[in-house]
Amino acid sequence: MRIELLTTGTELMLGTTQNTHGAWIGQRLFALGLRVDRQITVPDGPPVVESIRLGIEDGDVLIVTGGLGPTSDDLTREALSEVLGVEMIEDEGALRTMEEFFASRGRRMAEVNRKQAMALVGADILPNPNGTAPGLYVPPRMSGEHHCAVFLLPGPPREMYPMFDAEVVPRLEALAGIEKPPEMLELKFVGIGESDFHQEVDAQLKAIAGLEHGYCARLGEVDLRLIGSAEAVTEAQTIIEDTFAQQLVSSDGAILEEVVVRLLKEQGKSVATAESCTGGLIAARLTDVSGASEVFRYGFVTYANEAKRDLLGVNWEDLLEHGAVSEPVARQMAEGALRVGEAEVAVAVTGIAGPTGGTESKPVGTVFLGVAVKGEETKVLKQFHPWGREAFKRQVSQAALNLVRRALGA
Amino acid sequence: MRIELLTTGTELMLGTTQNTHGAWIGQRLFALGLRVDRQITVPDGPPVVESIRLGIEDGDVLIVTGGLGPTSDDLTREALSEVLGVEMIEDEGALRTMEEFFASRGRRMAEVNRKQAMALVGADILPNPNGTAPGLYVPPRMSGEHHCAVFLLPGPPREMYPMFDAEVVPRLEALAGIEKPPEMLELKFVGIGESDFHQEVDAQLKAIAGLEHGYCARLGEVDLRLIGSAEAVTEAQTIIEDTFAQQLVSSDGAILEEVVVRLLKEQGKSVATAESCTGGLIAARLTDVSGASEVFRYGFVTYANEAKRDLLGVNWEDLLEHGAVSEPVARQMAEGALRVGEAEVAVAVTGIAGPTGGTESKPVGTVFLGVAVKGEETKVLKQFHPWGREAFKRQVSQAALNLVRRALGA
Repeated sequence: MRIELLTTGTELMLGTTQNTHGAWIGQRLFALGLRVDRQITVPDGPPVVESIRLGIEDGDVLIVTGGLGPTSDDLTREALSEVLGVEMIEDEGALRTMEEFFASRGRRMAEVNRKQAMALVGADILPNPNGTAPGLYVPPRMSGEHHCAVFLLPGPPREMYPMFDAEVVPRLEALAGIEKPPEMLELKFVGIGESDFHQEVDAQLKAIAGLEHGYCARLGEVDLRLIGSAEAVTEAQTIIEDTFAQQLVSSDGAILEEVVVRLLKEQGKSVATAESCTGGLIAARLTDVSGASEVFRYGFVTYANEAKRDLLGVNWEDLLEHGAVSEPVARQMAEGALRVGEAEVAVAVTGIAGPTGGTESKPVGTVFLGVAVKGEETKVLKQFHPWGREAFKRQVSQAALNLVRRALGA
Repeated sequence: MRIELLTTGTELMLGTTQNTHGAWIGQRLFALGLRVDRQITVPDGPPVVESIRLGIEDGDVLIVTGGLGPTSDDLTREALSEVLGVEMIEDEGALRTMEEFFASRGRRMAEVNRKQAMALVGADILPNPNGTAPGLYVPPRMSGEHHCAVFLLPGPPREMYPMFDAEVVPRLEALAGIEKPPEMLELKFVGIGESDFHQEVDAQLKAIAGLEHGYCARLGEVDLRLIGSAEAVTEAQTIIEDTFAQQLVSSDGAILEEVVVRLLKEQGKSVATAESCTGGLIAARLTDVSGASEVFRYGFVTYANEAKRDLLGVNWEDLLEHGAVSEPVARQMAEGALRVGEAEVAVAVTGIAGPTGGTESKPVGTVFLGVAVKGEETKVLKQFHPWGREAFKRQVSQAALNLVRRALGA
């Protein structure tokens, strides 16, 4: 089954927006044993017509993203209507849903939004619980001899992703005759790089018949995907878990902050955060997890020395003598957060995110991480992440959350 | 001049690698007043032939990245040779350069690398100082009636980027006869949707000769790009700034948190944050901006009622009587942050991110935002953002930062 992907949007051509739909959809299809055969990207407007025609001619399935909005350059529906020679009609159900969407937010639907309720005659409306633009599914019979199934999906990821999972995946499974997708297991690791896997387990994994594996490395983390028969996946999982037990965050897709919140809930403990250089990112990540309020109550963003002293009781002499980025300050921040935040575990970070503020002895990228546990001795680590401000914050938050995970015995 | 971009690589289809060449090249071309008209992405192998043919048929320029490596699935040179019907020949200069490249790293060139010195007869070799694969430039005359210039470039960014700047840009300028690139202006807005633009200014913008405009909408923000002659862009800018003066965040590409930090610096003021439902995200966004430490010193993540009382002095009776998500609590959080955080401006948010915790009178998505300014009366707003936890946090942080921006007189 040849799958064509058409991503539309002038912003994708100008380089102001990264085109991430290809990778996301590629991963989703991979899990079904399918793949994108060709991706075409064009600006909004007339080129969409020509590209839809090409996709329908060459593909068995055409997935189009973008161009379903209310403005004049959103023309994907119209383009498909033109290519297929199928009339458009206002869908009453879609219109009502949109009106309700606006009403529930206390707004009246603007007249321009009305065109978003237009559907091709014979197409399925794909509900969009996260936005105004419904998607469309045009079954293969509607393109005659080309017999190509067409999906029109909204461009914004937060609308497209859920619609893809809810509406596209089941239809693709039916089109491809997939009864049982292959096993897929995603293992998440922290504190090691892709090259560690190559060095330690790659040859062993390659020797397992019927197994495909792929890495996805991001800042401070690596995902390993295993796909194949149940036996092959289990065999691979055993090898990997034996080799990287301490770095394994999850085997069920849970990300680091989710694992930390889960462990805290299981143990009936709470965590407090004391952040200087990460500026609230650790707290923000913890509170991304639903139910975090059970285990997270106090977070301190002590960017200034005075804040470290006033909120966490860090000794002023130590701040002056050792500097804010130092072992004693990280220690006292963690212990202060544990005490003031009435928590069982506390984590503290103080470092130099850059680009300015570095010195010879403490260059940009230097960070001290402290972890305090009730009734135990506080630990302080020094790390170095000289990869730019944003990467630094992300890496340090990753290291801090991992310290909490390890402090909880995982 | 129609420019086609062909990015090749199986890893791009599987979603393990983000396809970033489109955005990078798009930005480079934009500076020349050019743009990519279509980007096609295919896996390594036979689809490359078909896509090169399509690009040469439809384009005046075809830029191909990837597939110049030494392995068996690197077939871009061969594909171009097949499509054009032009013989390949080993280029002695390229071979010598490659041998020297390996020698300078103390390695002997492997036999498989030899194919990387193959060039099409009549093509220019494009030197690659950062890797083994030279690029190729095939002038328009070599594709006969199609008259399409073709560039073959290596896939790895650290090889492709310098080659693009050194070898591709000057040839494109010559091909396009470039005199002066057009104006481009990006305006960033907050607190309005794409449909507001359509309703209010779209018709006026369309009436301006020689102007192109496009929207890019994200959660709680819209970017508007204007492209055209200096006069057309200025005319459009005036219309838009008149219509949406209060929602305009920047005309120089600065994002909301950058604008807030800049305003604070200019006014010599500092901001404190008191966050419940956003859990540190507002502080984290402020501290993403380099130099934030000059204007941000104290951040409070008061997730629990006790934290609101202990750190910010929120009245316990009000917490019990009105609940944490209420007007008086938002007000007291903002005033507490202003006082304890020794700031000139403070912003506070308390709401229900969901998915749980909603009630009939305060459904998931409800939030109160307070903004306190030294010497002024504290303002409290109620908003409703029922779009899921992550979107809620983002939207509320956006609204909060915008309140600070407005409180600073912008």
